[in-house]
Amino acid sequence: MAKLSTQPYKGTRDFLPDEMSVRTQIFETMFRTVELYGFRRYDGPVLESAEIYEAKSGEEIANQQLYRLTDKGGRAIALRPEMTPSVARMIAGHEHDVPFPARWYSHVNCHRYERPQRGRVREHWQLNVDIFGGEGLEAEVEIFDVVGALLQGLGATPEMYVLRVNDRVLVEGALAHHVGVPPEKLVDVGMVLDRWEKVDGEKRIQTLTELGLAADQCERLEELTRLGLDDYCQAAGPEATSRSRLARILKEGLSEAPVQFDPLIMRAFNYYTSTVFEVFDVSPENRRSIFGGGRYDDLASLFTNRKIPGIGFGMGDVTTWNFLEQHGLLPKANLGPDVYVFGTGEAFQTVVRETARGLRREGMRVSIGFEPAGIRAGLKQANRYAADFAVIVAEAEQANGQMVVKNLQSGEQQTLSPEQVAPFLRDQAGQ
Amino acid sequence: MAKLSTQPYKGTRDFLPDEMSVRTQIFETMFRTVELYGFRRYDGPVLESAEIYEAKSGEEIANQQLYRLTDKGGRAIALRPEMTPSVARMIAGHEHDVPFPARWYSHVNCHRYERPQRGRVREHWQLNVDIFGGEGLEAEVEIFDVVGALLQGLGATPEMYVLRVNDRVLVEGALAHHVGVPPEKLVDVGMVLDRWEKVDGEKRIQTLTELGLAADQCERLEELTRLGLDDYCQAAGPEATSRSRLARILKEGLSEAPVQFDPLIMRAFNYYTSTVFEVFDVSPENRRSIFGGGRYDDLASLFTNRKIPGIGFGMGDVTTWNFLEQHGLLPKANLGPDVYVFGTGEAFQTVVRETARGLRREGMRVSIGFEPAGIRAGLKQANRYAADFAVIVAEAEQANGQMVVKNLQSGEQQTLSPEQVAPFLRDQAGQ
Repeated sequence: MAKLSTQPYKGTRDFLPDEMSVRTQIFETMFRTVELYGFRRYDGPVLESAEIYEAKSGEEIANQQLYRLTDKGGRAIALRPEMTPSVARMIAGHEHDVPFPARWYSHVNCHRYERPQRGRVREHWQLNVDIFGGEGLEAEVEIFDVVGALLQGLGATPEMYVLRVNDRVLVEGALAHHVGVPPEKLVDVGMVLDRWEKVDGEKRIQTLTELGLAADQCERLEELTRLGLDDYCQAAGPEATSRSRLARILKEGLSEAPVQFDPLIMRAFNYYTSTVFEVFDVSPENRRSIFGGGRYDDLASLFTNRKIPGIGFGMGDVTTWNFLEQHGLLPKANLGPDVYVFGTGEAFQTVVRETARGLRREGMRVSIGFEPAGIRAGLKQANRYAADFAVIVAEAEQANGQMVVKNLQSGEQQTLSPEQVAPFLRDQAGQ
Repeated sequence: MAKLSTQPYKGTRDFLPDEMSVRTQIFETMFRTVELYGFRRYDGPVLESAEIYEAKSGEEIANQQLYRLTDKGGRAIALRPEMTPSVARMIAGHEHDVPFPARWYSHVNCHRYERPQRGRVREHWQLNVDIFGGEGLEAEVEIFDVVGALLQGLGATPEMYVLRVNDRVLVEGALAHHVGVPPEKLVDVGMVLDRWEKVDGEKRIQTLTELGLAADQCERLEELTRLGLDDYCQAAGPEATSRSRLARILKEGLSEAPVQFDPLIMRAFNYYTSTVFEVFDVSPENRRSIFGGGRYDDLASLFTNRKIPGIGFGMGDVTTWNFLEQHGLLPKANLGPDVYVFGTGEAFQTVVRETARGLRREGMRVSIGFEPAGIRAGLKQANRYAADFAVIVAEAEQANGQMVVKNLQSGEQQTLSPEQVAPFLRDQAGQ
């Protein structure tokens, strides 16, 4: 019979134990960090009703990137491409029993049908962090602080990255007052800003002209993209500035994190209503977005009449991994086991098993040699497993009821009685 | 606009923080346990090529329960209904660099299109535990021991459950020699055994008659289901008995776990080749299978010519939760945060933020009051968050640069200077 492929489905990844150990350490560090900020973990299904993405996620996600299927009951469902609509659904469904402001995080896999390339895969894992029910700027400050703490927890220093922030309230003010963009064109012109650095100038002017902007408006738009915060606020007008949480946070320096105003940060999701941000690696070799997020004050309105503002972000494993690798911050794989126990003859297998059971009761991670092996072959296997110690149950020592414990790093070895083995290994581990 | 439903997709579940905390504790206990046995964690994609389920998973899974879709490149893919074919694919793809025997575990969500009912959902989480490359009975002993250790780790005692074990090698021997079932009918008759306790006698005889069994053969089959191990081995014949790892394990009492021979355990997956087992709750109120597994020596042959025997099991969250609940063993939700810091006026928000930052640096889980609140309202919120302590930044104490720390359990409170707060809370936590 022809063999099936051993490759994972295109754009998805297998994580072998060494890689998985690195990924697990990264996420566990992140869990510990967000828990310090009072966030509590939740989880939700991979499959969701497709309609929750159609209203607010934006055209690219809903139409091009969604894995859709119809179940046997005729329900139009999809593999979640992101977590925000799901968590908004859950929060709205429990609006009467969740204490607000609610700080929630999750660790979820999301699927997007994309052309696989650096930083982009079809299934990725992300840490999702959201605050629901915080109207004021304190929620923004907390989210920025959490972002800084997450990167610090992973070993990054503030020179390695920057939190580029913007506010759609300011952008809309500036587009309206400074450029003269009519209300119905705000979203489309905003998307031109979103793709500013990815599109050349000529193409951009063409798009803007099609959107009805005159040449002097295009120039004023270009001018906006070079403004610092104070000038931008002036362009946006006092009304927009007074509604902007971000302007106050930046002016008063309320966040610990390295936040920096950037008029080009927009974020493609339609549901963002005000603060938006993106975290960038600043190293010249990996000058790209690691992750981002923003405030979405109306997303829960898909599900409930109650107003439940939200702000949050999703931090994906692929770009985080690339960032950490770039800066030499990837954790080392936690190879295991601690101890490999083997015997040199069939007669010793019972002793091998009993020894392993005893060491496990002491909390050591122990693998057993399932088959008897010669000492050389057994030690080779212990090294292949990356064990720290080998316990060898061999004929010569068994004659005296003893066994050999070998430190696989130093090569030192001791002949010990069964009851000496665990205390000896515990001592060694304690050093 | 009409509101969308806040319910999760049928048969799937939302895990709110309290429930999620319980689920997380259960799985983390399981991870720690299997790591003591030298198992290393891996992960793989939710989406797989549909064909890997078609060959060996069995008709029910492949045809009735599979969520299938076709991607835009025309690939026939499916949401994994179980993990064994995926892990066999991964192992086969890395047969040259994985050290065998390989002990691997994963924590994965699987999807099956089923009618939701007690113990059955459409998306469940499971611990998947497998050994690849262990030919001998030591792999079985290790797997049984791990099962026992997992349940012990979760607080179960051996009186609460039983590991019902059987061996398809023995079954096939007994069906052939004792009942006279021809080779081409072995699988079908085996499936009758699998459903023995769920189907009434008359219906069963009808099925067996359709399969070509005479009345005396039906009787001898019924006889088999009542045999103990020794008689069963006799019925299976010496050749099958000598090939059965299970017979030796049971006769020599090699496993620590409460294993018990049961001629009715078959497991519906087609890929099992010898040892099969199922763990049952023995409490009268929940007398049902918690999880099961077995040996599948030919599954990797879908992907490679190399012979890589496997044995393993998947332990699902739903049935495990039911079992633990039945026996009063569910862990308590780890409610958070440790500390809730709030201020009674806008002017104190900076102190609130700085205090929270300081406590977090000390490793405490701290939530902030985003808005100023009166003392009563603030304490109410602290209790809603299930905090252990409240730190109150209020006018009277701030006049002396101090703040109030209140133990929300005992009601005791202290007025402390900012630098006294962290040491005081650390002391309290240490008690």
